[in-house]
Amino acid sequence: MKELIEIKDYLKKQSEFINENLRKFIPQGKPEILFDSIKYSLTAGGKRIRPILVLESAKAVGKERIEDILDIAIATEFIHTYSLIHDDLPSMDNDDLRRGKPTNHKVFGEAIAILAGDGLLTYAFELISNNKKIEPYKLIKVINILSNGTGIYGMVGGQAADILAEEGKFNDIKFIHLHKTAKFLESCCWIGGVLGGGDEKEQESLRKYGRYIGLAFQIQDDILDEIGNTEKLGKSVGKDRENNKLTFPSIYGIEKSREIAQDYLNKAIESLNNLKYTEILEQIGKFIVEREV
Amino acid sequence: MKELIEIKDYLKKQSEFINENLRKFIPQGKPEILFDSIKYSLTAGGKRIRPILVLESAKAVGKERIEDILDIAIATEFIHTYSLIHDDLPSMDNDDLRRGKPTNHKVFGEAIAILAGDGLLTYAFELISNNKKIEPYKLIKVINILSNGTGIYGMVGGQAADILAEEGKFNDIKFIHLHKTAKFLESCCWIGGVLGGGDEKEQESLRKYGRYIGLAFQIQDDILDEIGNTEKLGKSVGKDRENNKLTFPSIYGIEKSREIAQDYLNKAIESLNNLKYTEILEQIGKFIVEREV
Repeated sequence: MKELIEIKDYLKKQSEFINENLRKFIPQGKPEILFDSIKYSLTAGGKRIRPILVLESAKAVGKERIEDILDIAIATEFIHTYSLIHDDLPSMDNDDLRRGKPTNHKVFGEAIAILAGDGLLTYAFELISNNKKIEPYKLIKVINILSNGTGIYGMVGGQAADILAEEGKFNDIKFIHLHKTAKFLESCCWIGGVLGGGDEKEQESLRKYGRYIGLAFQIQDDILDEIGNTEKLGKSVGKDRENNKLTFPSIYGIEKSREIAQDYLNKAIESLNNLKYTEILEQIGKFIVEREV
Repeated sequence: MKELIEIKDYLKKQSEFINENLRKFIPQGKPEILFDSIKYSLTAGGKRIRPILVLESAKAVGKERIEDILDIAIATEFIHTYSLIHDDLPSMDNDDLRRGKPTNHKVFGEAIAILAGDGLLTYAFELISNNKKIEPYKLIKVINILSNGTGIYGMVGGQAADILAEEGKFNDIKFIHLHKTAKFLESCCWIGGVLGGGDEKEQESLRKYGRYIGLAFQIQDDILDEIGNTEKLGKSVGKDRENNKLTFPSIYGIEKSREIAQDYLNKAIESLNNLKYTEILEQIGKFIVEREV
């Protein structure tokens, strides 16, 4: 229990560190409403778990100069933010509340919300390709991993499957979790390994770790939607049930879902055995399964 | 007049060449509906002017092995296709017809259309980063140019400005044309120069050429929307006026708009003066201003 409190403090500090740096990368320009909309969602809070995973994975393979890769870590949060804006749209999950604030389209309208998402996604690749500290062949690998993990073979495919499941046109919950959530987290850990200079074996360990904590993360997300607290979570709960969503609790019940998440966590921690520094990643894994927000 | 007929034939042949090759890059996977939706829009026809410009620009600086860069040329059509799908959405331009067929969201629904767009955009970067023939530092430059030209500082910014102009919240037509259309075409010519091994000066020439034909292209697009033929164009005409859009004809009238387009064409052709092979690019410029579709 003490460990969990410590990792919570650590993650809070890290997310503040990400927030401070993210501010420097918020784009400015015309038309102002588009840029306001982008800033609105980028600064709406959140756990910043993806950039943290990039940095911690890089540290786990011995990277010390994390200032060289901060822009890339932050680019993952841009991609995450785009995905939230699009997921919240009326034709998708139709959410009015996100991180305790009205969703982007509620404030700026649907057209600007769609374009803010498109812009954030595109700008993430611009940010990565602007990096002058990392060798180009590594940047290309990072772009390849991220575009695969967040695109049609990753997050976008998973979100499509999730939407289709609601309409009764798809029914593979493991496919949904793997693609919608785990592949992106896997990508974040993997690119941390690439950017940190890890060898193939270390990269593979981080990749597996990211995948397993991603699977655990999504199960915990489903559980929190079922039993969580709207105020703490800063988003509506019970939406999954309302939307007839395929979730782990709806199929396996809460207790069994918790067991499965714990099992993924164990696999995630096992994956780390050939890395240099694993303690923080282990604690992050535990935090993901035990978190209440 | 003879030249125009010849370039029309040449462009038709080139677009068939792009179509044949594009087919090889159409992604397949689950959920099928998402991939069907992507395929539907990718194979709906179109002039394929962006990939053609990439290839012709590379040839203009002496590139012979265009098979090494075909995937990247085709990636630009993926980005263009994503932009059409999103632009047609009900909350954007609300179009039912595109290239003579029902728009993506009319067939697959809004959620899948949004995700197909997101997926196409992301997959374009995956395609580029998969290329093993071009040096990584050039690929990074290509990604940087394209993400800049199609994102918030380019196409996405222009589309946002266009939408806001309809609502009376933006009124700079030149900003709209430059960002919505010209910057992407500029990017295509510029990356052709990079991929073809052109030096800085040659790249700059191609960049300017692309920008000017882009500006001419959009004016001609506005003119065709005003006076064109629905059947030939394969899309609804008169939509701009109906949507209260800011266009060159609505501000300057048809004749003056034609003069401005011609002026841009002249500037585009002047820009080419230090390149090796310029004839095709010159003819493409002329075609753009004189086309009826």
